[in-house]
Amino acid sequence: MRLKFRPVDTTFYDLFSELAQHLVVGAELLAEMLADGGDRDDIARRMREAEHAADETTHAIVRRVNQTFVTPFDREDIYSLASGLDDVMDMMDEVVDLILLYEVHEMPALLHQQVEVIQRCAEVTAAAMPSLQTMKDLDEYWIEINRLENAGDKNHRRTLAHLFSGEFKAIQVLKLKDIVDSLEGSIDAFEKVANTVEQIAVKES
Amino acid sequence: MRLKFRPVDTTFYDLFSELAQHLVVGAELLAEMLADGGDRDDIARRMREAEHAADETTHAIVRRVNQTFVTPFDREDIYSLASGLDDVMDMMDEVVDLILLYEVHEMPALLHQQVEVIQRCAEVTAAAMPSLQTMKDLDEYWIEINRLENAGDKNHRRTLAHLFSGEFKAIQVLKLKDIVDSLEGSIDAFEKVANTVEQIAVKES
Amino acid sequence: MRLKFRPVDTTFYDLFSELAQHLVVGAELLAEMLADGGDRDDIARRMREAEHAADETTHAIVRRVNQTFVTPFDREDIYSLASGLDDVMDMMDEVVDLILLYEVHEMPALLHQQVEVIQRCAEVTAAAMPSLQTMKDLDEYWIEINRLENAGDKNHRRTLAHLFSGEFKAIQVLKLKDIVDSLEGSIDAFEKVANTVEQIAVKES
Repeated sequence: MRLKFRPVDTTFYDLFSELAQHLVVGAELLAEMLADGGDRDDIARRMREAEHAADETTHAIVRRVNQTFVTPFDREDIYSLASGLDDVMDMMDEVVDLILLYEVHEMPALLHQQVEVIQRCAEVTAAAMPSLQTMKDLDEYWIEINRLENAGDKNHRRTLAHLFSGEFKAIQVLKLKDIVDSLEGSIDAFEKVANTVEQIAVKES
Repeated sequence: MRLKFRPVDTTFYDLFSELAQHLVVGAELLAEMLADGGDRDDIARRMREAEHAADETTHAIVRRVNQTFVTPFDREDIYSLASGLDDVMDMMDEVVDLILLYEVHEMPALLHQQVEVIQRCAEVTAAAMPSLQTMKDLDEYWIEINRLENAGDKNHRRTLAHLFSGEFKAIQVLKLKDIVDSLEGSIDAFEKVANTVEQIAVKES
Repeated sequence: MRLKFRPVDTTFYDLFSELAQHLVVGAELLAEMLADGGDRDDIARRMREAEHAADETTHAIVRRVNQTFVTPFDREDIYSLASGLDDVMDMMDEVVDLILLYEVHEMPALLHQQVEVIQRCAEVTAAAMPSLQTMKDLDEYWIEINRLENAGDKNHRRTLAHLFSGEFKAIQVLKLKDIVDSLEGSIDAFEKVANTVEQIAVKES
């Protein structure tokens, strides 16, 4: 019989899964916001709710870190991962916010492709969270995030070239560039989460 | 009688208070720069002085960390807090610099409100520094910074909407947006300082 | 006879030198890209190769950290330094990319000066890497990077003033500002590397 010397609190894994699940919801709302004919004010309201829910879960994680004697991995890594996931939500929230604020109505087609990349990032991140418990099968997640980040980068560059092609007026370029940069920021934020998970896995292995 | 096993160097608290005090000066100069009829070159010169003074204090803190055997809290946290406070100064300095550089003369009214938020952030941060010694009464500080950050965010969004309302020419939007973003960056930098203080408090409690 | 208790793996120093050497190549390609009459597509292709080579070296460092029991300095510092150097490459790569993407052909003279600053930063950084082994003679490196960062900052501010002088159209300002900001970002990234080296030296001394 092998004694369990480290009776680890499994709530952390559930909370990380919950937090990543909020990102799946956020990415869906982002796609709704870009689609034609939606009620933008209502979508923005639901985005604020999702962002608020993610904040709550992040705080629950931080609270638990402070109350728990034995954490499944380093306190600082738990903090990094939680705030990294929360950062993704903030970036997606910013995109929705900017679209509403700037009253942008014609979206270049490439932006829809970029949001698809973000939705896929959210899905694979949420799917990877339960693997934190075993630290197994995370390779697939890193490879996929890396592939998505490359695809996102290509979309981003093509979108910028399009924005500066002469088709758009300066003010319109300014507005769209802000939105486009925030979309890319969301993907970068997903990549940062994957890097944090990788660092945790390296330490724990 | 309880022996003091950890005869902690209290100079650190004084130096952090001094550093935060430079931010109060910087925020005042920012307000002067936005006001009509000031001697902008002179204000910018005094801002450079304040920024230089903050650098000096930051270096004094780093030097002391390296010379001191027992520090009041983790070396890395001292370093984070000092550089976080210094970052605020750099952001405020950048705003003053951009206003001079871009020769912007008509400031939207919302920018004045944003500078008031920044002044209040500087005051509550400076007021909180002595509490680092006891780690007490810091809740009020976090709550107020959080409230200010929310107010700043609202101002920022309203300012952006105004900038893109069609009233301004593209070049003017570009200039003002840079200034507006740096103002928001200053508030974010204050929030980061508050987060660092919170992390220190959590560790020490 | 003094026993070597810490038979440190010297490969790390070689790998850091190799990584910094890629930056020297990158800075040269940046200068080529700004010069008239070059084959831009070919320069961009060689930049991608240099960026890829830097990635490889960075990964080699990370792999070695994970396989080595006794590292010459803290694992996290090795990681910071490697990713800091890699960040410089990414910033320089971005500049080349933006020039190609935005099809910018007339470069203000100040941009050439800025690239000279970057080339000098790359050279002194590469020259400093072997000193990591002895932690000696690093003062000169920090002083020079600091001087270069100040020079770069002055160039940057003068370039912005020029961009907004009224000579350029809004779209052109937008394009050039992106390039100019990435050039400054490259210099900032070099400064971050110098700060990381300084922190390592402080710990090890």
